[in-house]
Amino acid sequence: MSFQFAHRMGAVPESFLDTLFAVSSDPSIISFAGGLPSSELIDVEGIAEATAGVMADDGRSALQYSTCDGYLPLREWIAERYSRRLGIAARPEDVRIVNGSQQCLDLVAKIFCNPGDVIGMERPGYLGAVEAFSIYEPAICGVPLAPEGGPEIGAFTRLLAEKNPVFFYGIPNFQNPSGTSYPEAVRREVGTLCREHGVPFYEDDAFGELAFDGRPRMPVKRWAKEYGIVSGSFSKTVAPGMRIGWLWAPEEIIRAFDIAKQAADLHSNHLSQMIMHRYLTTHDYDAHLATVRRTYAANCRLMSDLLDDLLPDWTHTRPEGGMFMTAELPAGVSSMALFEEGLRERVAVMPGGPFFAGGGGDDCIRLNISTVGGEEIREGMDRLVRAARTLSS
Amino acid sequence: MSFQFAHRMGAVPESFLDTLFAVSSDPSIISFAGGLPSSELIDVEGIAEATAGVMADDGRSALQYSTCDGYLPLREWIAERYSRRLGIAARPEDVRIVNGSQQCLDLVAKIFCNPGDVIGMERPGYLGAVEAFSIYEPAICGVPLAPEGGPEIGAFTRLLAEKNPVFFYGIPNFQNPSGTSYPEAVRREVGTLCREHGVPFYEDDAFGELAFDGRPRMPVKRWAKEYGIVSGSFSKTVAPGMRIGWLWAPEEIIRAFDIAKQAADLHSNHLSQMIMHRYLTTHDYDAHLATVRRTYAANCRLMSDLLDDLLPDWTHTRPEGGMFMTAELPAGVSSMALFEEGLRERVAVMPGGPFFAGGGGDDCIRLNISTVGGEEIREGMDRLVRAARTLSS
Repeated sequence: MSFQFAHRMGAVPESFLDTLFAVSSDPSIISFAGGLPSSELIDVEGIAEATAGVMADDGRSALQYSTCDGYLPLREWIAERYSRRLGIAARPEDVRIVNGSQQCLDLVAKIFCNPGDVIGMERPGYLGAVEAFSIYEPAICGVPLAPEGGPEIGAFTRLLAEKNPVFFYGIPNFQNPSGTSYPEAVRREVGTLCREHGVPFYEDDAFGELAFDGRPRMPVKRWAKEYGIVSGSFSKTVAPGMRIGWLWAPEEIIRAFDIAKQAADLHSNHLSQMIMHRYLTTHDYDAHLATVRRTYAANCRLMSDLLDDLLPDWTHTRPEGGMFMTAELPAGVSSMALFEEGLRERVAVMPGGPFFAGGGGDDCIRLNISTVGGEEIREGMDRLVRAARTLSS
Repeated sequence: MSFQFAHRMGAVPESFLDTLFAVSSDPSIISFAGGLPSSELIDVEGIAEATAGVMADDGRSALQYSTCDGYLPLREWIAERYSRRLGIAARPEDVRIVNGSQQCLDLVAKIFCNPGDVIGMERPGYLGAVEAFSIYEPAICGVPLAPEGGPEIGAFTRLLAEKNPVFFYGIPNFQNPSGTSYPEAVRREVGTLCREHGVPFYEDDAFGELAFDGRPRMPVKRWAKEYGIVSGSFSKTVAPGMRIGWLWAPEEIIRAFDIAKQAADLHSNHLSQMIMHRYLTTHDYDAHLATVRRTYAANCRLMSDLLDDLLPDWTHTRPEGGMFMTAELPAGVSSMALFEEGLRERVAVMPGGPFFAGGGGDDCIRLNISTVGGEEIREGMDRLVRAARTLSS
């Protein structure tokens, strides 16, 4: 017996994520390959208090069905924070709650993309986005990242002018995988171009709250305006297991999004939404964020210094926030070979290939700085140096 | 500004659910129109205990990312219950956890359905399924329900033989909207036919645990075997706000499902999965179910008796479980008119139309028996009788 599946199922690239999960569950391996936030930094006690509070005061409501749009007080909180942090008026009716911002990738592609349509994205870009978009059989067109961050403007302009993409997807803040950010001039230019060409700019802002200096960066939406779509997430800042992300988008897009969301799963987890709102309003979220930022900043600096000292023929990005950086390997060193050799030395890195839709990228790796402490970074880097030496010898 | 959305967005019928939510939030209206389980019967105290236990013992793990397949102990519990209740061996590796079983509707259609493919389903059938499937632009072919329950076998056989459906979707136990169930002979025949024709039978078993007599009914999968797909849900038995449902399917389908699930939202809410498992294993689930069944059985009997006594020219189904029944209106009475007139009398019924993909069904209504107590049923039926009289006069 063999089932006949829909054409779209043949369009999805093989996922590397399962390999990663297997690697990260082996305690003898120091993993720079994963994408999880730090478990140690999750405020379990604070969330437990919020949980107990919700169950005591609103349990019956939290456990019942709710509406597709999401828990209104949580949407109000998110909108208010945008208005206050960025000075851009956001309304709760422009915000929708999803099961982690990965769901935005699925639903935004679902509402915009016919088979064969062009989706623009950064190259390298987030591999989960490539997987999510591929289901809708687009032609994914990558625009190379400039060394200083953000898409190369010439290639970006040509994409908009010649390929008529249904949207452009990017991560302006502390990008996954590179850790680079769009300079403000690039944000302005990219947003303005999108608006002029009538192409939605879909910015995935999973990491914006993790700026090491705590300073908010202006979203591209500031310039793309009614063509700006933003997704956000509490997965990197509070707790991924609660699966709470959101979309912030213009009214017309929200209307289409609601249809897709309702058909997909009626609504997001009501209990978790209420716990999240309670946590945010009864605990010092900004103090918690400051701790996370400080820790990640220290890890990032340490890894950066060790790369400079121990592997001077590698070049690497210098992130100002987030959880990742990329390193370019010397000529002739393959990232897949380094992945394999690294595992023999009990250290894991993420090969670059999966971040390059359509192939390429074997000359770089992604390094994660959120799940490892200083000791592990030092020891892991020693192991990585041994693996690199074996490959070059 | 006006965005160009994907073709699939034009295929989704307008949802009636928002109208329903608005109606059910007006406390002066007695609603027989909704589809919620009873809030009063949710074991808030038990779930609060389970929640506190998870946060105390496993909080850090519950709040971190997890794997796409779902929390293994919960999948083991579900598989074990199938094996014990039905005598059909189910393995945890054949079970996947989703964000409420509505997500199965989306993902199963996503993996099987190309635009123009035929999906078979019951007529009338679950309107949430029509919405979910429509996104994938199928030709939905309805097979009329026989008065004794289950699809008319002649029409069902013709569908399989002539239309080559990618799957048939049905609710064998206490169907939404009709409340009818497939007789065992029909299950056998339908399952055997599906197997012979190589057509997956997708049975949505949201209500199977709500048999008023507590006796398990054999799934069609018993006969469809490797062509049997079953979805289940804790929304009607424990708590819908936790959004936990599951798929039980053959290995090859699970593999495709995993790709779609991972792309859609990485994984289901980990915290809720662990709470649910803790609740099921530390509380008397069967005693809880017995209470729910007893309450719904009493409500159903009362509504049935009142319909017989007060509206003898209506004919209605006589469910043996679940949360719904349908009533056929006398010639000339429109369900949309009754809906409107009912609202004037402060009682809401669900018009039949939305359950009939492609049109029809205005001669029947759906009545819900889970959210109303005895007093409300009596008062609501009096109001309904007044509305019906106004329409016939």
